[in-house]
This record gives sequence, structure tokens and C-alpha cells, in this order.
Amino acid sequence: MQFLTSPIEKKTLEITDLSDPKLTQQEVCVTGAVHTIRDMGTVAFIILRKRDGLLQCVYEESEAQFSLKDVREADTVKAWGIPAASEKAPGGVEIRLKRITILSRAAAPLPIPIAKAKLNVSLETSLDLRPISLRNIRERARFRIQEGVVRGFREYLREQGFTEIHTPKIGARGAEGGANIFRLDYFHRPAVLAQSPQFYKQMMVGVFDRVFETAPVFRAEKHNTKRHLNEYTSLDLEMGYIDGFEDVMAMETGVLGRIMEILKRDYDRELSLLGITLPDVSRIPCVRFDEAKRLASEKYGRPIRSPYDLEPEEEALIGRYFQEEYGSDFVFVTHYPGKKRPFYAMDDPADPRYTLSFDCLYRGMEITTGGQRIHDYQMLLEKLERRGMSTEGMEHYLAAFRYGLPPHGGLGIGLERLTMQLVGDDNVRRTTLFPRDMSRLEP
Amino acid sequence: MQFLTSPIEKKTLEITDLSDPKLTQQEVCVTGAVHTIRDMGTVAFIILRKRDGLLQCVYEESEAQFSLKDVREADTVKAWGIPAASEKAPGGVEIRLKRITILSRAAAPLPIPIAKAKLNVSLETSLDLRPISLRNIRERARFRIQEGVVRGFREYLREQGFTEIHTPKIGARGAEGGANIFRLDYFHRPAVLAQSPQFYKQMMVGVFDRVFETAPVFRAEKHNTKRHLNEYTSLDLEMGYIDGFEDVMAMETGVLGRIMEILKRDYDRELSLLGITLPDVSRIPCVRFDEAKRLASEKYGRPIRSPYDLEPEEEALIGRYFQEEYGSDFVFVTHYPGKKRPFYAMDDPADPRYTLSFDCLYRGMEITTGGQRIHDYQMLLEKLERRGMSTEGMEHYLAAFRYGLPPHGGLGIGLERLTMQLVGDDNVRRTTLFPRDMSRLEP
Repeated sequence: MQFLTSPIEKKTLEITDLSDPKLTQQEVCVTGAVHTIRDMGTVAFIILRKRDGLLQCVYEESEAQFSLKDVREADTVKAWGIPAASEKAPGGVEIRLKRITILSRAAAPLPIPIAKAKLNVSLETSLDLRPISLRNIRERARFRIQEGVVRGFREYLREQGFTEIHTPKIGARGAEGGANIFRLDYFHRPAVLAQSPQFYKQMMVGVFDRVFETAPVFRAEKHNTKRHLNEYTSLDLEMGYIDGFEDVMAMETGVLGRIMEILKRDYDRELSLLGITLPDVSRIPCVRFDEAKRLASEKYGRPIRSPYDLEPEEEALIGRYFQEEYGSDFVFVTHYPGKKRPFYAMDDPADPRYTLSFDCLYRGMEITTGGQRIHDYQMLLEKLERRGMSTEGMEHYLAAFRYGLPPHGGLGIGLERLTMQLVGDDNVRRTTLFPRDMSRLEP
Repeated sequence: MQFLTSPIEKKTLEITDLSDPKLTQQEVCVTGAVHTIRDMGTVAFIILRKRDGLLQCVYEESEAQFSLKDVREADTVKAWGIPAASEKAPGGVEIRLKRITILSRAAAPLPIPIAKAKLNVSLETSLDLRPISLRNIRERARFRIQEGVVRGFREYLREQGFTEIHTPKIGARGAEGGANIFRLDYFHRPAVLAQSPQFYKQMMVGVFDRVFETAPVFRAEKHNTKRHLNEYTSLDLEMGYIDGFEDVMAMETGVLGRIMEILKRDYDRELSLLGITLPDVSRIPCVRFDEAKRLASEKYGRPIRSPYDLEPEEEALIGRYFQEEYGSDFVFVTHYPGKKRPFYAMDDPADPRYTLSFDCLYRGMEITTGGQRIHDYQMLLEKLERRGMSTEGMEHYLAAFRYGLPPHGGLGIGLERLTMQLVGDDNVRRTTLFPRDMSRLEP
């Protein structure tokens, strides 16, 4: 009988392995995709794309036991050679090639020049050719950064006593209500896709006190803007036994701190590739909604048009204000008017026209919405009634309150938007692997 | 201007904090849900449910500055008192109560006795009352175990050079084909929900070499069995530059090893609560599909009915065989017939009726499907043609191959099934927070 044990030890090396000085003069084996070939006449450079970067391989006819013509861009190969320190090589090491085996052949020349430092194609082309354009090392670096963001979110919350949950994306009704719901047929019954895990995470506060989820959400919004997606990854948390919604904002501050720590520690290569300077998140200013509007309007001379909502341009000005006045890329805007918040938002007892809620703006764009929720069963029923909303289909959600939920609050962070602002991109599609918008369902 | 910094220091303690011997004779503050009240006449026990377990609080009229009648089951409270070591208390510590504040009132007595050690209600009732039944500490413990499983999967793969990805769940077509696809209207265009991230993770091998995803998948299968869900969490990985599909099985062996390590280290409380003995996964037997069928049939006298597929009863017998003969709860069954595998499965060059694919059975139930994939563009086109399949709508997937993909393979693990087998449950709905089946869309 054959048995499988822990991963099979591989004799092929990654770039980080190659910096080991013991390897000099010793033949090594590497695998990779032929990113580009630069034929200089007497010598040629075959650049391999590996998961941890680009590896320069030097081809000299006198040394190599193969013909340069046998290797083409986009082939994947296994290559043997002698590593040598090289200041000009990316990563500081190169391989003097001896032998090569072609693992797979590209069937056609690449349709876009992915080996260029910057991929100079339109966003549409880049998205149409996504499996190829992502092979550009700057394009792919965005998604390593994104990985670090999610890691920081999870790691920090786990340390703070949160439990990770997985809630259903198909349901009988939407949590937030409204028109922006995708509908589907579920075995001949009407069903919807989750706009957020809101109801579920609140119910789970009654079980685990503190929960989080990192999962897709679906919004059928008819917005074709640079900041909207119809499917995105939401980083959600909900926490019980809070003393106020400041606890939720403080938790986000902690999360952001950990994210920056992890990025600095483990994603240095990607940060330098993209020229990213990490923001200072050790202290984040916090300003009331009406005050923020007033400050931005006064400083930049833009009249306040709608007293109930922040227009994108207003968000940008508030972001600019706190950057200029306090040197902060982030700002919490608090006490949003109840009119623009869902029924479950806790009204401010000091002035019930406002809610104990907040948005977090990053470089002038909303990346988080959160706040304290109503936890009292009667208060929730009264709010629903005041809004003229039916409790039909909400029985399970309401049961959690009927049988006791502690004071609680939470938030949702849009992963792609946070990544977009961190990377300094101008369109959220650039920080989405395979974006979904009103006109894009593929790839 | 107000600023937010890292999380606000709380003065309320968790159970693990209370074991600190320095706390004796010092008043402490705790929060929690009133799990149950046991009134013994001269003394009463108020058991608080907290995220890290149950906390016994002792009420004596002479000591406490409140009336026992003021506290009811399912209320959430903040309580002050003196901690004292107690052998009879769960966790070894109890609180002698002084004062209490009610944070929220339950509006009605609990509909099911959640404080019982075992929740003796039917599965249907438990699922109908999910936000309440999960408050039973054995019920919720399953989902802490589940958290540990996901952590192990991610942690191990990250160390092995994998990048986490987030792929879209709404698409223009299904990856696996077939009838079991949920369909929806996407801005007046037909769309489907992802049955798996198969196409995307393969495309991403061309970008990051090794990728994983932990996300929901959707299957409109008309199976109302104990092991099927219509929405579940799939733990997916895909890895390039493999030498064979043994690399993929070895990677799963490593993943399982890390999962057991993490569970042993961090989820001891839940393991003992549920009486779980962790399986040995240091070496997992590996047997060919036809050989596995023959061995089980011979030993247990069950004739082989279908040569192309494993019936559930046959899987159970194969599991039993490897448990009895080799003491292993796990077994890899390899070389499934091509007829029952999707088009992208790599045929076995030694006998093209079979594929270089595998299932992993755990206690006689399939928890993983995986294998090597075709990576050559021409070979893939030929296979599609042999199967009479159209390439329409597959252009983006095929482009990844046209422009070079390395030899690769991967797998998908059903999270709820793996948890079910680990916990020893008899229905996968028990290890799903809010299950979706043909008749259940709520809660």
C-alpha cells in the first residue's frame, strides 16, 4: 500500500532560496514562466516569472546545452544552471543557464506586452484580457497587497476574541431592503442574493459575542462609476457588549494598524514595486457629519446642497480637509442622519434625527460603514413601525432580539475600495481580480 | 478634535482572565447572557454565557445588592463580584455576586432549553430556531472547530507560497456544466452562480503559481440527503509546476496535519466539550479506484454494480476497510474513470479510460475532489471536441492556456462535510450555521 505524507520535498528553488550564499558554484533547478527574452547578440537574458518575483537567467551559447530558439515567451520551463550574485539582476542573483526543459508551450505570441514595467493598455483591454494582464508583475502586486489586508483583518480580530463565521449568500429576503437586490429562482421559489451579512452577523452576536466574516456581497446598483462594483468582498465584523459606537471605531483603528504592520513586514517587495507609502493609522480624527460638511464647505467654498447625505465630491473635500489640517489620510465621520441609515441603526438619544453611526473615509472615499445597532426588541419593533416597514420575513432576525441580544455594533469594509485607496488607483476595477459591473460578466 | 486610537481598554473580564490568582478578593466586572438560573433556596447560581465558555456566578441574598427576581434567563447583564476558585464551577472559577445591571431584557421565555448539556430537539426545530439553538454551547462549539479548520487550511498554504484570491460568484456560465446551476437575471442578461472557482483558480496559476480561496459555492442539485447542501463553503487550492497529482494529495496531507495541530493547540475546550478525538493524518493510504472497489467488495461481500462511480454505501465500505486494515480514518482513492470526471481532468497516459484524479474519503465520506488538470492548449481543445462540447463562452478560460500555463492540479474540500466528519455528526446541516437545502431558505 502506498501512503502519502507531508508535502513532497522539491528540488526546485524559489528566488528567496537562491540568495543562500552556500549555493554558489552549485547547479540548481528552477521553474517559471518565460516572462521575456532579451537577446543581446553574444549573450541573452531569459527572464523567468516566479511567484516571488522575476529571475534573470543568462544564456551563453558556449555554456548552455540548448538553443535559444527553443525557448519562447510565455512558455513555462524547468531550468538548470549556476547561481551567481549580480547587482543588475532583480533580486540580486542570476542563473547562468546550462539546460532547460519546456514544460508547456504557449500556442501564440502574447497579445499585450506584459513584461513592460507598466502595462500601457486601457482598463477595458486589461480587464478583457485579465488572465494575461495580471501576469504583469505590477498588476499582480495589487492582489498580494489585498491578501495582506485580509490577513490583517482576520488576525487582529481573532486576537480580540472574534469568531469567524460563514453565512449564506442565498436567502429569502434582503437585509437592507431597497431595489438593489439580485433575484433568482430557487427551486421554484423566489430568492435573493445577500447584499450584506447584516442580519446574520447580528444574530451571531447572541452566540459568539464577537464575529467576523470575509465574503462576497451582491448589489444590483445601477451605478457605473469608478467606485462601484456589483459584487465585492466585504470585511464584516459585529461585536456585543459595547459601551458605545466608539468601541467599533476603535476596533477598526486596531484592524487598520495591524494591516499596515503586516504589509510592512511581509509585503515589502510589492510595496516598493508599486511605490506605496503606508499611511499612519495610529490616531484617526473623528468628526460629526454636520460639522464635517460645514468645515469642508467653509474652507473650500462649496455650498452644502443636501443636508442628509455626503456627495462624492463632498467626501473628497472632507478627506482633503483632514489631510491638510491634521495630516491624516483617514477620518471617521459620525452621526449620520437617520433618513439615510437603515432601520436597525441606533438613533442618537441626544437628538433622534441622527444615528450613532459612522463612515470611515480614506483619502476622501468611503471605505467603511458602521455603527451601533438597536438591540432592544421593543425599540426595534417601534422603529420598523415608524418607518412603515412590515416584519414579514423578518421573524428569524427578530427572534434573536426577542430572546435577548446585548448592546452591539459593527461595520463592513469594502476590500477592493480599501485596496484601491492604498495602492492609489483611480478605479476600483483595477483592484478587483475579475470585476463585475453593469456591463461586465466576464471573464 | 477627537481622535481614535487602538481599541479602548475594557475593564470587563473574560473567563480566561479570571484564572489569574492576583484577582482574588478584588472586585471584578464581567458581562454575559444569562444562560440559566438555578435557585437552590439559600443560594442561587446565575450561569453567564460568554464567548469563552460558561461562568458560574453565585447569588446570596446577604451579599448581593439586588434581588434575584430582577434577573431572568436570556437577559444580558453586566455584573460585579469577587472571583473565587471553585472546583465545581466550569472553568474552575466562580464569581460571588455584588451588583448587576441589566443590559437588555429578553421579551419572552426561551422556546427551547438551550442550557441543557445536549439540546434535545429535532434537527428541524434546531434549524428553525437557529439564532437561539446555536446558543447551546455544544451547538456553537462545532463552529469554533470549523473556524480552526479554515485557519489551518489558510495558514499552511500561505507558508507553502500560496496567494489567497477572491473570484466572482456571479458569472456568464458555469465551470462544471450540467444542470445543477442556479440562474439569475443580471441587468437583463442571463447569469449563473458559481458552482466552483475552478476556471478562475486555474487562470490564476498563470499569475501566482499557487492560489487558494475559501468562499461559498452554489449547486442547484436536487438531492435532499444528509450530505448535500445547495450552498456550501469550498476550500479550494490550485498549484502549478507539479510533477504529478501526488503533489496535490501531499499538499492536502500537509493541510490536514496543520488543521489537527491548530485544533489541538487552540480548540481544546471545544474538542473536550464535543468528545472529539483528533484523527491521525501523518500518513494517508492511497489506493486506485478499481482496486478500492475490489477490496471492499471482496471483504464485505457487496457486488460491484457500477464500474464508473462510487455509490455512497461503497464509499462507506472503502472507508471501513482502510480503518480496519490500516487504522486510517482517511484514504485517497485515485484514478477515477474519465466518464465521471469533468473535461479538464488529465487523462492517465498509461490508460486514458482513467484520469489522474482523486477523492479523499474521511470516515467513508468524500470530503475532497481533486487531481491534475490538462495544461496543454491543444490537448484541452481536443478533449472538448471529443466530448462534443462547445468552446463558446470559454474564450477567457482558454486564453490562459493559449498563452501558457504550467502543469498544475488542485482540489476542493467541502468545509461543512469535513467538519461533520470531524465532529461525528450524522447530517451536514448540523455543521452549517444557516443551511440551504431544497426546502430551506431561512433563517
